[in-house]
Amino acid sequence: MTATAHSTSDRGPGEQPSLTLTAQDSLGISARTQLRPIHEISAAMGLAEDLIEPYGRGVAKVDLAAIGRLADCPAGKYILVTAITPTPLGEGKTTTAVGLGQGLQKSGRRATIAVRQPSLGPTLGIKGGGTGGGWSQVVPMERLNLHLTGDLHAVTAAHNQLAAMVDNHLHRGSPSGLHPERVTWRRVMDVNDRSLRQIVTGMGPAGGGAASNGPLQQSGFDITAASEVMATLSLARSLEELRDRLGRIVVGTTGDGEPVTAEDIKAAGAMTVLLREALQPNLLQTVEHTPALVHCGPFGNIATGNSSVVADLIGVRTADYLITEAGFAADMGAERFFNIKCRVSGLSPDAAVVVATVRALKVHSGRHRVVAGRPLPEEMLKESPEEVREGAENLRAQLGIIRRHGVTPVVAINAFPTDFASEHEVIAQVAAEEGARCAVSTHFADGGAGALELADAVAEAAEEPEAFRLLYRDEESLVEKIETIATEVYGADGVDLSPRAAKDLTAYTEAGYGRLPVCVAKTHLSLSADPKLVGAPRGWRLPVREVRLSAGAGFVYPICGTIQTMPGLGANPAAENIDIDAEGQVIGLF
Amino acid sequence: MTATAHSTSDRGPGEQPSLTLTAQDSLGISARTQLRPIHEISAAMGLAEDLIEPYGRGVAKVDLAAIGRLADCPAGKYILVTAITPTPLGEGKTTTAVGLGQGLQKSGRRATIAVRQPSLGPTLGIKGGGTGGGWSQVVPMERLNLHLTGDLHAVTAAHNQLAAMVDNHLHRGSPSGLHPERVTWRRVMDVNDRSLRQIVTGMGPAGGGAASNGPLQQSGFDITAASEVMATLSLARSLEELRDRLGRIVVGTTGDGEPVTAEDIKAAGAMTVLLREALQPNLLQTVEHTPALVHCGPFGNIATGNSSVVADLIGVRTADYLITEAGFAADMGAERFFNIKCRVSGLSPDAAVVVATVRALKVHSGRHRVVAGRPLPEEMLKESPEEVREGAENLRAQLGIIRRHGVTPVVAINAFPTDFASEHEVIAQVAAEEGARCAVSTHFADGGAGALELADAVAEAAEEPEAFRLLYRDEESLVEKIETIATEVYGADGVDLSPRAAKDLTAYTEAGYGRLPVCVAKTHLSLSADPKLVGAPRGWRLPVREVRLSAGAGFVYPICGTIQTMPGLGANPAAENIDIDAEGQVIGLF
Repeated sequence: MTATAHSTSDRGPGEQPSLTLTAQDSLGISARTQLRPIHEISAAMGLAEDLIEPYGRGVAKVDLAAIGRLADCPAGKYILVTAITPTPLGEGKTTTAVGLGQGLQKSGRRATIAVRQPSLGPTLGIKGGGTGGGWSQVVPMERLNLHLTGDLHAVTAAHNQLAAMVDNHLHRGSPSGLHPERVTWRRVMDVNDRSLRQIVTGMGPAGGGAASNGPLQQSGFDITAASEVMATLSLARSLEELRDRLGRIVVGTTGDGEPVTAEDIKAAGAMTVLLREALQPNLLQTVEHTPALVHCGPFGNIATGNSSVVADLIGVRTADYLITEAGFAADMGAERFFNIKCRVSGLSPDAAVVVATVRALKVHSGRHRVVAGRPLPEEMLKESPEEVREGAENLRAQLGIIRRHGVTPVVAINAFPTDFASEHEVIAQVAAEEGARCAVSTHFADGGAGALELADAVAEAAEEPEAFRLLYRDEESLVEKIETIATEVYGADGVDLSPRAAKDLTAYTEAGYGRLPVCVAKTHLSLSADPKLVGAPRGWRLPVREVRLSAGAGFVYPICGTIQTMPGLGANPAAENIDIDAEGQVIGLF
Repeated sequence: MTATAHSTSDRGPGEQPSLTLTAQDSLGISARTQLRPIHEISAAMGLAEDLIEPYGRGVAKVDLAAIGRLADCPAGKYILVTAITPTPLGEGKTTTAVGLGQGLQKSGRRATIAVRQPSLGPTLGIKGGGTGGGWSQVVPMERLNLHLTGDLHAVTAAHNQLAAMVDNHLHRGSPSGLHPERVTWRRVMDVNDRSLRQIVTGMGPAGGGAASNGPLQQSGFDITAASEVMATLSLARSLEELRDRLGRIVVGTTGDGEPVTAEDIKAAGAMTVLLREALQPNLLQTVEHTPALVHCGPFGNIATGNSSVVADLIGVRTADYLITEAGFAADMGAERFFNIKCRVSGLSPDAAVVVATVRALKVHSGRHRVVAGRPLPEEMLKESPEEVREGAENLRAQLGIIRRHGVTPVVAINAFPTDFASEHEVIAQVAAEEGARCAVSTHFADGGAGALELADAVAEAAEEPEAFRLLYRDEESLVEKIETIATEVYGADGVDLSPRAAKDLTAYTEAGYGRLPVCVAKTHLSLSADPKLVGAPRGWRLPVREVRLSAGAGFVYPICGTIQTMPGLGANPAAENIDIDAEGQVIGLF
């Protein structure tokens, strides 16, 4: 278990394993990958040809009829990939999910991967794509990171069609009684554009005539991933259920506070039609030809941060192992995976991989600070097993969250070239102290061959007796659910509701939304609600400012702290370096 | 030649020819059409399999390499479909283009059709789809009318990415010198939403910090079809040329009036990458399996209203006849087809079909008024060949426009069940008086079998000696070009430039844009700039309020009258009736 030992991988001739493989190489690796025909990939999954519809080179849509057609196939083991609290750089969760799938496949097991579709805005902004990287990525990456099959655009269209119909409804005298100052439905676009966060619409000629513009309103845009339509799409199990859920979306209230829904605005049917293809998961492959279902990408703070229920329902019947990934750390994505996504799907996870990196654990020691877009501080690159041990409190807490849901955790050390063996040893010791399996994985540089140890650890863990349990019952009150998550997941001493939050919770309960699960919107950079508190903060209370409703997706989300739902662009947006070369190939995308 | 005689067509068993076939039946016909595999369609066009990439059932993208690969194939006859000045209902131009293609095919000739992609906003608003109708339509219509392969969404993304980068550029201190009050680049969305016409962006916290929103700006949204990016995409001949054109887009000026371009903002590369697949034409088929290239849909007043140059460059080498369609009447779409699109493509049209309807000619008599969304006035349905003859002045003028470009016109009477034989006779007489061939076509009810007479007339016309000429030379001044179009195409006595328009023209000329062609933005409901003037108005002058620049697309567009670039929704938007049925099939879309 050292940071410099790399197993060989089946990379193409002339490709050398490289410890200094950078993110920029990922596009090159993707471009050089010889894609297998998508029908070969789907056939290996046991999907009949009529369930697969190609959408451009190396990409296909999977018909939802697959859920019924595969019902008699044995279910594979259902493996979640989650993480410790990340730095702003991310700790390679998607890359690990892809590498693990490849590792399982390389070790002779059948695996399918389910990941989220990256959002276009951040890809062109600062973050780069979200398809894994290096020798553990889903391809073709330039399609995946741009439009793919247009699902995000369909979400944008459905969301904004509802917005247009809401304003037209007001323009026509508001027959439903929707109050102009109580509209909560905003608009969305898949772009990083801070100018659109807060806008005023309906400027210019007023009144009800044909030449007049719409009602003067305060409004604004969120990024498409933050749309309630996206969250709704990711949780629907069928087109009919999607239709019902969309109809339940609340766009605002009457003067008396009665909810007005998309059904009342007569928009739900058209929205469903706009989302008909978007509800079908996209099938791609990894650079080692492991099947990868890429579908939906709801925000990880105000929504679940999980890929779709339908992708998992299909994927789990197509392999010995379905590897599915949840956004941010276990307190965020995994908690919603367990208590929202699994509650809807009825699936029970068999193991959960917790991705840990040396750099993030050093940050959790409280001695360093990492800023996105800047190089790591020099002193973080020095050998320091002590700092890793100090920061491991966060790892212990995240493992505890997995255990609390009755699931067996496995620690995956996502190895970096700058790591030291002594630092990996500490992580392994901590895992052992917590009773968890642990493996170093070099999948970024080595592909599946670098994840063989991890694959074995996961396979063992998945054989342990299943004891999955939800953290709370539907019948518990919304307040009780929030308190349970705050204390048992985040380690808070309790919850402080603002008067507004308390009023919101009463109103939702009275309106019949009290049985919904809860999706706490807080920072992903801390187990607490304060992004500056690293490690495993104790002696704090969760402050809830207000509570919002996502009736279509089917959860309420308490707002704790400042949540930005429309990113801005940096001083040097990634888009400035993206271009085509003389052969028309994409450059600068990573 | 009667309105009630219909030839038989090869419709499916149980399908009866119907004189009362309504638009609502079009979805049913589409749904019952047995699609041929798209590879069969492309093979019949002589396109090698590696040039075709399927994108969902019945749809494929065509690789631009086809242009080079087909260079040695003989060019087919290049046939434009245009029309008389339409009523607000439209006179069935797309339907006629589709029917003509089917008729040519049914008569043993090889035909390919090139049409525009419909815009999503109007489809969900008032207009219904734009794929033809009845037994002359392109299928699958529900994909065509919704997202198709996402080209419009790609245009939206590229346009708004530039907008975000422009505002970020200002937010970062405007290194190019772009003046905040001289930004002309707006945003786009493919929705009918009057509330977005005029907005204020960048509300909320100001300043240059990370938490601040963008600069406070007056802005607004146009519908995606009105985007300069759409016009640019439709006129590019290659990816490299698209890259160059996008770089030339002007987003505003410095305080000194110097143009600032997308290249200056460093956005053109990323925009090109976003449009890489969108530049490839989409291949579909008609209900009779005639190949149909569906690509781009720029606005017909502020832009060309023509489908893409690349679709025509490919299509003309794939058949004996390429039928291409241009928006609105001959004074609008055909004039731009000749003087902008053909100037770019280098292609020469061999004939032009002018679609005429009894109802529109009756409106041109000045005795009736048609309002979209309301039934035709009762008195318009009475037999009245006199009114048709009075209104035929418009037809004569439109035929003259075709002749002025050296192209042979053919009049297509798009027959309606409510027409009388005596009314068709008058149109045929007028055509004969103008020396033009004429045919009644019942393609809506009868498919290609109803367009056999028209197919023969077009085939004959296309054999006449070619004499195509552009109306003006690049070297003429912008003012001269506007005057030529106004007097020789619209029949105006001259042009009245406002002081601002004169200043605009001088500025564009000084900035080096004087060699560009001109795209006059005026109403499509009259040959004049006044939508109330029907027939062939005389004794009027074209008032130019201002002149705008579309440097990427490569034209300047004088604004004459009020041009609405963001539609609103009506009292009962079409979207309210669109839904899925119990089997998950789309209903209410037409």
